[in-house]
Amino acid sequence: MDAHHDNHHHIENDSQFAGLTVNNGVAQPPSVNPYLKARRRRPLPSAGELVEGILRGDVTMLSRAVTMVESLSPEHQTIAQEVIEKCLPHSGNSRRIGITGVPGAGKSTSIDEFGLHVLKDGGRLAVLAIDPSSERTKGSILGDKTRMERLSVNPHAFIRPSPSAGSLGGVARKTRETIVLCEAAGYNNIFVETVGVGQSETAVHSMVDFFLLIQLAGTGDELQGIKRGIMEMADGIVINKADGDNVDRARLAQAQFRSALQLFPPSPSGWSPDVLCYSGYYAIGIAEVWDMIDRYFDYVKANGYFERKRNEQARYWMYETIDEQLRRNFYTRPDIEAMLSDKEARVLANRQSSFTAARDILDHYYSAL
Amino acid sequence: MDAHHDNHHHIENDSQFAGLTVNNGVAQPPSVNPYLKARRRRPLPSAGELVEGILRGDVTMLSRAVTMVESLSPEHQTIAQEVIEKCLPHSGNSRRIGITGVPGAGKSTSIDEFGLHVLKDGGRLAVLAIDPSSERTKGSILGDKTRMERLSVNPHAFIRPSPSAGSLGGVARKTRETIVLCEAAGYNNIFVETVGVGQSETAVHSMVDFFLLIQLAGTGDELQGIKRGIMEMADGIVINKADGDNVDRARLAQAQFRSALQLFPPSPSGWSPDVLCYSGYYAIGIAEVWDMIDRYFDYVKANGYFERKRNEQARYWMYETIDEQLRRNFYTRPDIEAMLSDKEARVLANRQSSFTAARDILDHYYSAL
Repeated sequence: MDAHHDNHHHIENDSQFAGLTVNNGVAQPPSVNPYLKARRRRPLPSAGELVEGILRGDVTMLSRAVTMVESLSPEHQTIAQEVIEKCLPHSGNSRRIGITGVPGAGKSTSIDEFGLHVLKDGGRLAVLAIDPSSERTKGSILGDKTRMERLSVNPHAFIRPSPSAGSLGGVARKTRETIVLCEAAGYNNIFVETVGVGQSETAVHSMVDFFLLIQLAGTGDELQGIKRGIMEMADGIVINKADGDNVDRARLAQAQFRSALQLFPPSPSGWSPDVLCYSGYYAIGIAEVWDMIDRYFDYVKANGYFERKRNEQARYWMYETIDEQLRRNFYTRPDIEAMLSDKEARVLANRQSSFTAARDILDHYYSAL
Repeated sequence: MDAHHDNHHHIENDSQFAGLTVNNGVAQPPSVNPYLKARRRRPLPSAGELVEGILRGDVTMLSRAVTMVESLSPEHQTIAQEVIEKCLPHSGNSRRIGITGVPGAGKSTSIDEFGLHVLKDGGRLAVLAIDPSSERTKGSILGDKTRMERLSVNPHAFIRPSPSAGSLGGVARKTRETIVLCEAAGYNNIFVETVGVGQSETAVHSMVDFFLLIQLAGTGDELQGIKRGIMEMADGIVINKADGDNVDRARLAQAQFRSALQLFPPSPSGWSPDVLCYSGYYAIGIAEVWDMIDRYFDYVKANGYFERKRNEQARYWMYETIDEQLRRNFYTRPDIEAMLSDKEARVLANRQSSFTAARDILDHYYSAL
């Protein structure tokens, strides 16, 4: 990829936009957001105050509520859950768009352009992210300084980095709850960004209406990082850096991806994903990408898939939360951990079957509960 | 597809090969295999007798042990688990090959040919199946009469239909345990067949070394049934019915699939899946398909992936069994079922968040345990 596409945006002083800045990525984030700590002397806002602020579109109140959603403190969680519950009836009225691509695909520059394009028609945009790893210092997701140069200073855009590192399920849930708050605050476009190399895409796929995959022209190497299966999740594939000398390669990649998509079975929405070329850096082809996304929303709203998918997602997250908690309750017990490592060794040595090993541990668990 | 490829094999009288025949598909199978019932007056063989029989390759004893593995009776399960445990040290020495494709792709005819090819070099072959649906009367999986005309009369082949309908996890586990018994009985080639349209492929993928996808030449229609994501699981894709007028279409499909595979990220084994044409019906190209599979085994045994994957699979099944049991213990409680449907309605009406709904049910569950 071309070096000039990366790390060329820096904002020297963004303190005037405090409500819009992002926190630094940290290896082991504290359980309470430092931003909140600095204001600790102020009493915590009540759920009612937060909801009232969110509903009139107050960015500071929205930020504080999101911080509580992300907090591990039980006191904050109690308030956060009450806020979410009260925002729920005001949520749902947005286009939720997942955007993924390997590091280097130019996601930040693209989101900057896509975002400006979306805001041309009015409305508001929230940009969220899911990155359960703590390796955010690599700059993959809304890194040290936001690289969304113009969105970050746009009063109609709300940019929020990934919740602190934790289990994927936990991080994803917080992002999903943040979507509810943003929608209640009047954000009618939600972007959720992921790095496209891990498990997070399934989670994002389960909370967005449209899933956009950013690819690069080129052979094997650039594709190495993309997780298997992601291509089949995409509602649209866009090939970035279709500019200058790279246009021919991008067009070739476009043809290749188009013919590959034809071999895939139809998606459950009935929508046929298209492949488009664009340049995030030179702002070429942005409108065409967005026309495709507009067509998708028209299509799935007309055939009922939009509503059906949202319902399926709400159901999915209820069951996913249950399943995760059932597993956590089991796997975090010290006695179970000890048994597991012993049994695993026996299974790998062919001394016990996977099934009886599991059964022994479960017998112990239920008798100890 | 050509009509003459389907349902043209019937064995009028196979009672002389009782040990090799398959039972009829039934909508609601009894919990105990009728075959076993007929012999009920004979005392149950002990685990030791079964193991001794299996280890000397006695097909009747192998069949009886598999029937116990599939049985829901606790008495049979106790014997079955002891047999599996004692067979484990004698298992593992086989090539486990998953074979999938939509109904109509010609799986049975192909397996008949592939099996004969494999047996040319000596050794023994077991053909198992996973089909958690009870719709086996459609003839998709080892239907009413086995359509593996020559394998079914070959003394070196052991053909066993899918365990009775049940949860996918349960059916898959039984097939996995049957693999252990077959290997201990000296079967050094194991085929596991699935229909390629449901969830079962992931389960099969988790118990085989090589995953073969049978496709047909043609456009959208023939691909409709294949589940999204399966193509990326395949270690090899073979296009059947490359015969007569169909050769050109098959070659075109081969080129299309090859170019599509190049867009996929490399598989964790480092192996690059190939696409080959063949005709199961006219026995064209069978050796080439098998050469590819031989090359795969040479490759993954040399680079250590073979061993690593087998270990991962053993671990996977232990954790999968645990997770399934944790879920079952929760979801089969009547009080939980009632709460779930109430909460689900609230979630879909946007009256409660997915998370607090889940939390309420879990609080009830752990306090009631």
